[in-house]
Amino acid sequence: MFQTIFANVRKACPLVHNITNYVTVNDCANMLLACGASPIMADDEEEVEEITALCAGLNINIGTLNRRTIASMLLAGKRANVLGHPVVLDPVGAGASKLRTETAERLLKEVKFTVIRGNISEIKTLAYGNGTTNGVDADVADRVTDENLPEMVAFAKAFAAKTGAVIAITGAIDIVADSSRAYCIRNGHPMMASITGTGCQLSAMTAAFVAANREQALEATAAAVAAMGYAGELAYERRSATDGNATYRNGIIDAIYNMTPETLEKGARYEVY
Amino acid sequence: MFQTIFANVRKACPLVHNITNYVTVNDCANMLLACGASPIMADDEEEVEEITALCAGLNINIGTLNRRTIASMLLAGKRANVLGHPVVLDPVGAGASKLRTETAERLLKEVKFTVIRGNISEIKTLAYGNGTTNGVDADVADRVTDENLPEMVAFAKAFAAKTGAVIAITGAIDIVADSSRAYCIRNGHPMMASITGTGCQLSAMTAAFVAANREQALEATAAAVAAMGYAGELAYERRSATDGNATYRNGIIDAIYNMTPETLEKGARYEVY
Amino acid sequence: MFQTIFANVRKACPLVHNITNYVTVNDCANMLLACGASPIMADDEEEVEEITALCAGLNINIGTLNRRTIASMLLAGKRANVLGHPVVLDPVGAGASKLRTETAERLLKEVKFTVIRGNISEIKTLAYGNGTTNGVDADVADRVTDENLPEMVAFAKAFAAKTGAVIAITGAIDIVADSSRAYCIRNGHPMMASITGTGCQLSAMTAAFVAANREQALEATAAAVAAMGYAGELAYERRSATDGNATYRNGIIDAIYNMTPETLEKGARYEVY
Repeated sequence: MFQTIFANVRKACPLVHNITNYVTVNDCANMLLACGASPIMADDEEEVEEITALCAGLNINIGTLNRRTIASMLLAGKRANVLGHPVVLDPVGAGASKLRTETAERLLKEVKFTVIRGNISEIKTLAYGNGTTNGVDADVADRVTDENLPEMVAFAKAFAAKTGAVIAITGAIDIVADSSRAYCIRNGHPMMASITGTGCQLSAMTAAFVAANREQALEATAAAVAAMGYAGELAYERRSATDGNATYRNGIIDAIYNMTPETLEKGARYEVY
Repeated sequence: MFQTIFANVRKACPLVHNITNYVTVNDCANMLLACGASPIMADDEEEVEEITALCAGLNINIGTLNRRTIASMLLAGKRANVLGHPVVLDPVGAGASKLRTETAERLLKEVKFTVIRGNISEIKTLAYGNGTTNGVDADVADRVTDENLPEMVAFAKAFAAKTGAVIAITGAIDIVADSSRAYCIRNGHPMMASITGTGCQLSAMTAAFVAANREQALEATAAAVAAMGYAGELAYERRSATDGNATYRNGIIDAIYNMTPETLEKGARYEVY
Repeated sequence: MFQTIFANVRKACPLVHNITNYVTVNDCANMLLACGASPIMADDEEEVEEITALCAGLNINIGTLNRRTIASMLLAGKRANVLGHPVVLDPVGAGASKLRTETAERLLKEVKFTVIRGNISEIKTLAYGNGTTNGVDADVADRVTDENLPEMVAFAKAFAAKTGAVIAITGAIDIVADSSRAYCIRNGHPMMASITGTGCQLSAMTAAFVAANREQALEATAAAVAAMGYAGELAYERRSATDGNATYRNGIIDAIYNMTPETLEKGARYEVY
């Protein structure tokens, strides 16, 4: 099924509007191109509504938020809602500062999100109003493991029911859930933690996947998460002894560029609960 | 002739001031270094006039414009004009929003540009006050082809006559024109469309080329366009089976770094009308 | 000794708060990850104090400063001082504009820095209130050579005494000094000048090194400088004929990723005065 979903992205070439941080923005743009979509970045209040109207999907990432861009996120998100465009939220660092937590909460209140993708600490912060955090990384104590998986799946489904969004919690084991079903995805490689922006890139790609698969937000999100993890595996396999995290970063984007719907279908490893 | 032009860049090492978007800014900096120039990025109103005064050329790119940086673009552009420094405009996404279109128009009215470089949709927007657009990419209907080439060359020359700037329309076939002559450049590779920022990088490099070849803005722009396209060809040739767009992005910058005036002279493919 | 210092970074995995320019920010983040630290970027006044409180060190880089981020730098710097966190200043382009020079001076007056790292022109600007500069690059006339080394070492020690900070002047020969001792580091490769951001990356990495070696700021800074230079050598050795500055940029980050405390100890070349 991921095969059809990915083929739809390559066929539709969705234009995705990104209001995102300046740390990983170039990687997000190249990742969107790698998966077959087109990126546009625009964050000024005076143009975000118009830009989002041109696009097929919107990706809001609070990574280096400020007062000016927060206003733009709200404007663009509401406009995308009116137009019925899918909207993805990446609550980078929610829990790490009051500004991030409150902005994420305000976005959740004023904008209807199709997908919320974050690490477990960020998602817990959104669900419970507070959470532990380690900067922009998940707190170790929070991590999804095989032991706590049933509990985490229930948590993701409940938060999906509450928000009406597909919830994607990414980490060593990824959970992608709506209110009734959850994909637990086993793709990925630990080395992905050694580069900045794999989460941001995945959120951007998720916006493309849901934009090209409007009626299947759960499956489209699961396919994007599996594709990212599988790309991390492929890039690791191709790594030479002197390669480090910089080359690995390029390798992941390259792997998405060269991934086909068929290889994704074969490479994806997941269970559905 | 491109040989001499490129040799002048390597000899002069022009310092280029860039007010550009945060998506591709790092690539622009590394591309300037690759061609033998030096980059400086500064976008605050309080310093842009001073910074531009230190430099040999200015590159204005509206890719992620906002109110603050628009004011800086105007200040820097006017100051560069007073000093007689070459100024390049990259009207990224003109036509995609009122803010971008109006900002590009205002810049054209208040600043005298040496070169305007964009895709065909962006340039048509500037010339006609409106245009079709596909976000930051050219609309397919607009594309320059062998069939419409004479008409497009006439359009470019007419817009060059109107603005007093060299007009560079880049795409599968590139047109670089002043009011009386046009270079049609056949270098490039379709894979260049799969990475973000080749246009931005080219605009930055063009600023370096015209800064080092003050009396030959047309030829300098044509040489920069040919160099970029040729680099796209070379990077494609060197590509291995598992490389994708991320490695290709590095390959293009690498190819400019290793390009010599002689290899550019041999690799450039163009006609003059 | 550099061995123990680097091992401490890998053990402590310090979280480093960066208020830095948008040109090289991604490279700074990946370099921090490469050396074993974690990056967080946040530049809004409303959150910088909280973010810095979460972290083990702060890196302030004025590369693309503006009014908004200058206020954040001051807030974060003062907060880090109250908390006793190490703070690094990278005065990018001090001397190139009044805004940069005055901002650097104001930061020096209001914040106590653990380390100040810049090229010789930037450091002279801070020390003398003015200096020659070539944009963001050092002026040739200023460069540290074997001939002027004793004088430069004395200058660095005197400025260290005046500021209470470790002074790191990087270039072909690097000087890292406190008021009584100076490391002259001979690592590095001329090709490092062909990529943007090696200085910024080094400043970020230095913040991690001093954060993980709180009682040894001089040695930690010297170790970071040696590691960066040695990475430049290793990346150059691994370079193939068609590689250029883009691949070299990745190669340097990769070399830090793969560097061990032992290889750094063996590869570092320096004298102590």
